[in-house]
Amino acid sequence: MKVITFGEVMLRLSPPGVERFVQTDTLAMHFGGTEANVAVSLAQLGLETAHVTRFPDHALGRSATGYLRQYGVGTQHVRYGAGRLGLYFLETGAGSRASQIIYDRVDSAFSRITPTDVDWESILTGADWFHWTGITPALSQGAADCLLAGIQTANRLGVPVSADIVYRSNLWQYGRTPQEIMPALTEGCTLVLGNKSLFSELYGVVGSTFIESGMAMMRRFPTIRYITDTKRNSLSASHNQLSAKLFDGDMVHKSRVYDVQPIVDRIGTGDAYMAGLIYGLLTFKNPQRAVEFGAAASALKHTIAGDVNLATVTEIETLEAGDSSGKLRR
Amino acid sequence: MKVITFGEVMLRLSPPGVERFVQTDTLAMHFGGTEANVAVSLAQLGLETAHVTRFPDHALGRSATGYLRQYGVGTQHVRYGAGRLGLYFLETGAGSRASQIIYDRVDSAFSRITPTDVDWESILTGADWFHWTGITPALSQGAADCLLAGIQTANRLGVPVSADIVYRSNLWQYGRTPQEIMPALTEGCTLVLGNKSLFSELYGVVGSTFIESGMAMMRRFPTIRYITDTKRNSLSASHNQLSAKLFDGDMVHKSRVYDVQPIVDRIGTGDAYMAGLIYGLLTFKNPQRAVEFGAAASALKHTIAGDVNLATVTEIETLEAGDSSGKLRR
Amino acid sequence: MKVITFGEVMLRLSPPGVERFVQTDTLAMHFGGTEANVAVSLAQLGLETAHVTRFPDHALGRSATGYLRQYGVGTQHVRYGAGRLGLYFLETGAGSRASQIIYDRVDSAFSRITPTDVDWESILTGADWFHWTGITPALSQGAADCLLAGIQTANRLGVPVSADIVYRSNLWQYGRTPQEIMPALTEGCTLVLGNKSLFSELYGVVGSTFIESGMAMMRRFPTIRYITDTKRNSLSASHNQLSAKLFDGDMVHKSRVYDVQPIVDRIGTGDAYMAGLIYGLLTFKNPQRAVEFGAAASALKHTIAGDVNLATVTEIETLEAGDSSGKLRR
Amino acid sequence: MKVITFGEVMLRLSPPGVERFVQTDTLAMHFGGTEANVAVSLAQLGLETAHVTRFPDHALGRSATGYLRQYGVGTQHVRYGAGRLGLYFLETGAGSRASQIIYDRVDSAFSRITPTDVDWESILTGADWFHWTGITPALSQGAADCLLAGIQTANRLGVPVSADIVYRSNLWQYGRTPQEIMPALTEGCTLVLGNKSLFSELYGVVGSTFIESGMAMMRRFPTIRYITDTKRNSLSASHNQLSAKLFDGDMVHKSRVYDVQPIVDRIGTGDAYMAGLIYGLLTFKNPQRAVEFGAAASALKHTIAGDVNLATVTEIETLEAGDSSGKLRR
Amino acid sequence: MKVITFGEVMLRLSPPGVERFVQTDTLAMHFGGTEANVAVSLAQLGLETAHVTRFPDHALGRSATGYLRQYGVGTQHVRYGAGRLGLYFLETGAGSRASQIIYDRVDSAFSRITPTDVDWESILTGADWFHWTGITPALSQGAADCLLAGIQTANRLGVPVSADIVYRSNLWQYGRTPQEIMPALTEGCTLVLGNKSLFSELYGVVGSTFIESGMAMMRRFPTIRYITDTKRNSLSASHNQLSAKLFDGDMVHKSRVYDVQPIVDRIGTGDAYMAGLIYGLLTFKNPQRAVEFGAAASALKHTIAGDVNLATVTEIETLEAGDSSGKLRR
Amino acid sequence: MKVITFGEVMLRLSPPGVERFVQTDTLAMHFGGTEANVAVSLAQLGLETAHVTRFPDHALGRSATGYLRQYGVGTQHVRYGAGRLGLYFLETGAGSRASQIIYDRVDSAFSRITPTDVDWESILTGADWFHWTGITPALSQGAADCLLAGIQTANRLGVPVSADIVYRSNLWQYGRTPQEIMPALTEGCTLVLGNKSLFSELYGVVGSTFIESGMAMMRRFPTIRYITDTKRNSLSASHNQLSAKLFDGDMVHKSRVYDVQPIVDRIGTGDAYMAGLIYGLLTFKNPQRAVEFGAAASALKHTIAGDVNLATVTEIETLEAGDSSGKLRR
Ligand SMILES: [Ca+2]
Ligand SMILES: [Ca+2]
Ligand SMILES: [Ca+2]
Ligand SMILES: [Ca+2]
Ligand SMILES: [Ca+2]
Ligand SMILES: [Ca+2]
Ligand SMILES: [Ca+2]
Ligand SMILES: [Ca+2]
Ligand SMILES: [Ca+2]
Ligand SMILES: [Ca+2]
Ligand SMILES: [Ca+2]
Ligand SMILES: [Ca+2]
Ligand code: NI
Ligand code: NI
Ligand code: NI
Ligand code: NI
Ligand code: NI
Ligand code: NI
Ligand code: NI
Ligand code: NI
Ligand code: NI
Ligand code: NI
Ligand code: NI
Ligand code: NI
Ligand code: NI
Ligand code: NI
Ligand code: NI
Ligand code: NI
Ligand code: NI
Ligand code: NI
Repeated sequence: MKVITFGEVMLRLSPPGVERFVQTDTLAMHFGGTEANVAVSLAQLGLETAHVTRFPDHALGRSATGYLRQYGVGTQHVRYGAGRLGLYFLETGAGSRASQIIYDRVDSAFSRITPTDVDWESILTGADWFHWTGITPALSQGAADCLLAGIQTANRLGVPVSADIVYRSNLWQYGRTPQEIMPALTEGCTLVLGNKSLFSELYGVVGSTFIESGMAMMRRFPTIRYITDTKRNSLSASHNQLSAKLFDGDMVHKSRVYDVQPIVDRIGTGDAYMAGLIYGLLTFKNPQRAVEFGAAASALKHTIAGDVNLATVTEIETLEAGDSSGKLRR
Repeated sequence: MKVITFGEVMLRLSPPGVERFVQTDTLAMHFGGTEANVAVSLAQLGLETAHVTRFPDHALGRSATGYLRQYGVGTQHVRYGAGRLGLYFLETGAGSRASQIIYDRVDSAFSRITPTDVDWESILTGADWFHWTGITPALSQGAADCLLAGIQTANRLGVPVSADIVYRSNLWQYGRTPQEIMPALTEGCTLVLGNKSLFSELYGVVGSTFIESGMAMMRRFPTIRYITDTKRNSLSASHNQLSAKLFDGDMVHKSRVYDVQPIVDRIGTGDAYMAGLIYGLLTFKNPQRAVEFGAAASALKHTIAGDVNLATVTEIETLEAGDSSGKLRR
Repeated sequence: MKVITFGEVMLRLSPPGVERFVQTDTLAMHFGGTEANVAVSLAQLGLETAHVTRFPDHALGRSATGYLRQYGVGTQHVRYGAGRLGLYFLETGAGSRASQIIYDRVDSAFSRITPTDVDWESILTGADWFHWTGITPALSQGAADCLLAGIQTANRLGVPVSADIVYRSNLWQYGRTPQEIMPALTEGCTLVLGNKSLFSELYGVVGSTFIESGMAMMRRFPTIRYITDTKRNSLSASHNQLSAKLFDGDMVHKSRVYDVQPIVDRIGTGDAYMAGLIYGLLTFKNPQRAVEFGAAASALKHTIAGDVNLATVTEIETLEAGDSSGKLRR
Repeated sequence: MKVITFGEVMLRLSPPGVERFVQTDTLAMHFGGTEANVAVSLAQLGLETAHVTRFPDHALGRSATGYLRQYGVGTQHVRYGAGRLGLYFLETGAGSRASQIIYDRVDSAFSRITPTDVDWESILTGADWFHWTGITPALSQGAADCLLAGIQTANRLGVPVSADIVYRSNLWQYGRTPQEIMPALTEGCTLVLGNKSLFSELYGVVGSTFIESGMAMMRRFPTIRYITDTKRNSLSASHNQLSAKLFDGDMVHKSRVYDVQPIVDRIGTGDAYMAGLIYGLLTFKNPQRAVEFGAAASALKHTIAGDVNLATVTEIETLEAGDSSGKLRR
Repeated sequence: MKVITFGEVMLRLSPPGVERFVQTDTLAMHFGGTEANVAVSLAQLGLETAHVTRFPDHALGRSATGYLRQYGVGTQHVRYGAGRLGLYFLETGAGSRASQIIYDRVDSAFSRITPTDVDWESILTGADWFHWTGITPALSQGAADCLLAGIQTANRLGVPVSADIVYRSNLWQYGRTPQEIMPALTEGCTLVLGNKSLFSELYGVVGSTFIESGMAMMRRFPTIRYITDTKRNSLSASHNQLSAKLFDGDMVHKSRVYDVQPIVDRIGTGDAYMAGLIYGLLTFKNPQRAVEFGAAASALKHTIAGDVNLATVTEIETLEAGDSSGKLRR
Repeated sequence: MKVITFGEVMLRLSPPGVERFVQTDTLAMHFGGTEANVAVSLAQLGLETAHVTRFPDHALGRSATGYLRQYGVGTQHVRYGAGRLGLYFLETGAGSRASQIIYDRVDSAFSRITPTDVDWESILTGADWFHWTGITPALSQGAADCLLAGIQTANRLGVPVSADIVYRSNLWQYGRTPQEIMPALTEGCTLVLGNKSLFSELYGVVGSTFIESGMAMMRRFPTIRYITDTKRNSLSASHNQLSAKLFDGDMVHKSRVYDVQPIVDRIGTGDAYMAGLIYGLLTFKNPQRAVEFGAAASALKHTIAGDVNLATVTEIETLEAGDSSGKLRR
């Protein structure tokens, strides 16, 4: 089983614990990016992965590659060149104080990627899955073009494609709108993570319920077999409730609801869900188990510092089976 | 808007996290003092402030000034001279284990202050508020005399005066009692933070309810326009419930009740309330909003390490408006 | 009052906070071992203690001795010789993610101990209590032999003996079974910590309730005066409920139930109970107070990092008296 | 005495100690910029200072202001607006391994400054000195224009102007050359730090010795009264020899040579020299003492972590007087 | 260019900075092993590498693999199974205080390796070099057997073989002597690192000079083309002088002598030399350049924390070319 | 062999590495006091020791006791009571920047000690040595009285007494001069560390050379058998040269000269010498070996962080024998 992901990886810089930016004089380093987070998580689950990206050709760009390799992600398709290393600064909140992020990713080496940088044909040959998100086409025309080439190659080669169609309005700065760009990318997708209001805003696809809008999406994009979404009840920065659902054209499979307290790190919990779901669909071939596995994976990610889910299959299955006792394992 | 505060600033030394004193071999440094905490908090809220104090003339005394300046407090009226830097050692508790403080503030440079050290006339001219607490007159005759001169100057110049009349019995070591000293200081105050039993103990002013004793205080000290207090339900060292009330002579304005969990740092949460209340009274000119703003400020302070509240107006207003979801801000 | 304990002390190595093994590049050092944890805890409570063990004769073995001495445990009976320093690696969990331990204690210097290494006669003369656990006889024939000599000497000298008969199946590697070894060790014990299923598995002593199996144990081992056990409801790695009970041949004394949240460190909480119970039995000579004191001690241990309980008598009595408010002590 | 400085301040991020970028997962934060470094150093020496700059309007921009304030620099003229916070990543070397810097300052908030952001008239009125460097006009047309307005205002108000005409070729990216921009800025300077080859490259001013090219500069720019330069013999990243010279039109004043070992932090040592020299010229009004004071200040800076010199007048004078014994001061 | 290495990788645990074991309560983690150190170093120089080893199948064993991957070493041939993770504790000295190591590697998962664990045929097919050291055959019969199979396969496939024949007498605990084991392993080697006294002790090969004993070795082991050694003048734990020499059957190529001060980390400096030499022989095909490159690599390693050399080709060539100025690179 | 020491122990607080006070927000904790430093050092050398002192009765006072115990010093004679824990703040210098200390020890619990606190008879019975310094009688009349009682008891019991007669003028604040107090204390001493100018200033004993003033001291105080002193050539805060000499009434025994670079921690190096000398006199009964051992001990102390010498007999003897190579010990 081999999964290919494509997207920017940023250096995350965060004060220790829950210190505020203005208090700290050290910053912890982690690397993260929504698509690479999925790859790292899948690598922990035992799948073969490779992440396609582009870094600046300096010691920190090389460190980013080392990070991906450390966690078992294949980096043979990483490219190096001009441009910055994308950054984000994260201040972790607690209780009623929200976490906050200062993005600093303009003009990254990744945003300067172009279709000629990536040989999709060789990368996707033999792959079992390809994953992308709505962050990538928001960054630059080159990134959007390169992604489109990847999706089309995947389609040609029969590789299933998943998309988290997240829309971050402040990212779209290069002169195009998501309404112009996203539909062509969504063509040929197998699995889409999104919700009613996104479907309406990005594609003009409407429906009054999750099922209805999901069915409308499937009509508009006939390759789609699964529509999925997560639901979060945010009681505080330290305490959330969390579940997921998966519509397979037939019915909605709902996961159990996880009560997550304390939250160690909220970042990347959606990516952990997506990785768990992809793993589940590839491995169990059972939508109900897949959505349960994804939700349990996401719940566990909240207890792990950094952007990526380092939980193992055993840990996820224990939680999925209802054991949230956290009893010491010797 | 300019607020003047007066009092000792101590170096706080605390083991990392929730380690016990006996376990640690490093101590985290913070600076704090109840009045300066109010100044720092108001500076974060955008008001002009200046803190009047006296430090030893060595590198750590200069560091204390640097700390105040870093957080935007004016230090042009800080004096330097003989005496120690006041210290306190804080061990932060968790759950059913209480935090504990070892004070080490005897013979501080501040306690050696005298009225001739401070030119109140020039300091308070143009000021909009003056704040003091019951800690200061407990430290030394010089501090009490100097404070009295400040209050009287404020009165003469028409600057409103607030007092947190906190009574710490073990501090009063210089031969006078609070019953001898506090009444003259309370003369001319506009806003007093205290409760029934304190009013009775310090001034012999009695009343069977908050309103009754508040009205009695207003009769005894006619300049008082507001009596305020906070209420805390301490479920554990990590979980408190918190609210505030403000009596304006007419009615009691009560804030909502905040459930605070987890508590990152309990120190200075009363000062955060006082700063929020002062900000509210100066800015909104609406007692209900002022007490709500103060209570929300205090709730947020529990999530911030150190003695001072580094919350912004936006963060406080979000919580005041009922959003305690802690949702990530990008 | 002097208490003697006997057993292995390991170096514990754990990532900072709740980091996973794979994330960290520093490890915090603590020392711990179930019997030494009892000694350290009793030393904090003011009793004289001495721990009997054997360390490798190198700088880390000497550091382990220094650790015991720092916390007030007598080390005059520690021996040095060949063999490794036993280690264990601890990854602390949070919420639904369990903590996990990797043991690395094979062939420790302690496991090479033999009866000739220990002069029990002189060590136990004048002692008021002797404590051992089921870990020790599991490690090697020498350790089991040495322990047996100690118990028999204690019996001869009239020193009460307590045992936590914990059974860890993967430890018994030297060719004997606990069924062969434990009965002779349990002879002459005064206080046993265990439960029905353990009594049945180790001694073939059965009973359908705690009382019944306790009475059966007392018939089988006539020196036993107390049977005790703790009960834990593990809601998550960060939230447990906890109580204890003590059967004195007459009746079962039950402690109150403690709600423990957050859990700072779960390790050694049973040892903290045992130490509190021994302290209570020696000091209060009242089973109900002893079990209450032990349970409160154990609850407090959950808030303290490391393997040992550093709570004081005052802190434990405050909690035992029902004050879990965690209010700041100045 | 009041000194005004103008330029970009960056957040510096560096691995602890001498770790390589690829090894670390924390970064130490310092702030620095060549002109602000001069201001901070002068503030430690007791002069009044204010730094003029522009930061992004977010928590890290505010932190940068707090840093300047902490070290006593006036920040009343700092502006906030769009653009990034300039960054640089520093890996500190040792022995034969060189330190290296990765700059990441493109499109900073400072680079977007324009002349209308700064009210030079009010800022420079009453000032005793104005300092700038060749970094600023390299960043953007707006920065160059704003600087030119400042220099011209200083000239009009009779405020002496110093310039470190450092030329970093890779910075000049906005379409102008230093040969086009620097001459007009150098008009009206009193003190210039540079060397023969720079004078030739930037202004076409040639001379075969330091004196000759200095005299040629003074003919070309008649306001120049002093030409200065430092000399460094770099034996390794941990061991340098250092001296300075000052040509006053008459003669060259040379400092003693300092042997610097170990080097704690090489960054900002030139700025420390410039600050010491400015202090010396303003205070001693004696070129020989000024250059000696500057060189001693620079030598001490090598022992201080971060970009700025935190040495005091006493420390510098002790070293200047020949005492490099480093004897403990009690 | 692809290099294969084979040997144990240990977790190194060391107090921060130059603290003594008895002082510390944290340990920094690094991984290292003489052969893997060579692989990591070669990966930094841009060669393809793969390390063959065996780890315990738990989170720390997986972390060790992650470490190798992070630094670019191929881990496709790593095996997992029973046994411990080898450890060593390092206390770093300074000045006249020596560093010291406590080894704790008995019964490691690597020592349990057997020839059937490794498919040398597929691993070495296409390889350009194979490297081993005298540590491996000292650990167990299985390791020695497995190594012998590797060397013989390399010989058959025409892959050059290098050996650092280091002899650590306390390692040989499994009943065989190096005199019994080493000769067969040395058959078929191309490059040997050792000295006169080792050649005499291990093989009975004598010679009164480096050249004479080198020539005698080449007669005894006809495949040997190069004999090499390093020379160290240890002035203190912080200051060494260092050079290397390479005998190619014809003449001795000597490197320049490097003065290394301060020493950041002495561990792995011989491995850094070996990696530099292998790189030089493979790349420059010039013995003089190879030995110079190796010596410069080793000198730089002294400035890098941990067991492995993270210097780049550019850095090494700069030093090799005589520039040890450590001047800041921007 | 049992050595008794008497004096204050302070908590030392120092920024990490060579940071300045104004830069740090953490402080490393060590405990130290010149006499206790001698005891700790002797305990590392294998002698039995006990330190007599008085601490405040709170968690930090108890921590100080734990520190002494950890390093093997007997604490059975420590008393607890009112007063502060003495503190000192240490900023460690580097190169030409001197270290500096801010003392904060006024009114310590130790300074409140009185003769009735200490049962010298029982403490000194069976002791082999008693050591004191000129710090103790400077602190308070009670401390001076208590010390005098100790010295007189030692004399009566035939226990040799050593004194480091260090004179710190700013300490003598209680109304007596050292000229009044020191002579009676020096009566009955066996070994005195001091120099010509001290002998003249404190006792009016003059002599133009070390030998002459030493002989004059022996005439004035007939019990003195040894006069000793150290000599330091302070090249920088990181580089010193060091030797010692011992006059035994007959001749001056001089140690070799040690070149110490780098200096990790300069504090307590004199105490390390004194401990080494006492050890040498008690063990070798050879003045030349004793002074050599003491000087080597002191040289090694410069490489060890904190106030105390943690070097072992083996390490000291290696250096004493001329091996300063710092070669790795495995
Ligand atoms: Ca910090
Ligand atoms: Ca700071
Ligand atoms: Ca975080
Ligand atoms: Ca620590
Ligand atoms: Ca410690
Ligand atoms: Ca805290
Ligand atoms: Ca780390
Ligand atoms: Ca790392
Ligand atoms: Ca832990
Ligand atoms: Ca640095
Ligand atoms: Ca190290
Ligand atoms: Ca230090
Ligand atoms: Ni919940
Ligand atoms: Ni992390
Ligand atoms: Ni500790
Ligand atoms: Ni700890
Ligand atoms: Ni609650
Ligand atoms: Ni802090
Ligand atoms: Ni990390
Ligand atoms: Ni609960
Ligand atoms: Ni810990
Ligand atoms: Ni590292
Ligand atoms: Ni030099
Ligand atoms: Ni710093
Ligand atoms: Ni320490
Ligand atoms: Ni040298
Ligand atoms: Ni490291
Ligand atoms: Ni700092
Ligand atoms: Ni030297
Ligand atoms: Ni330390």
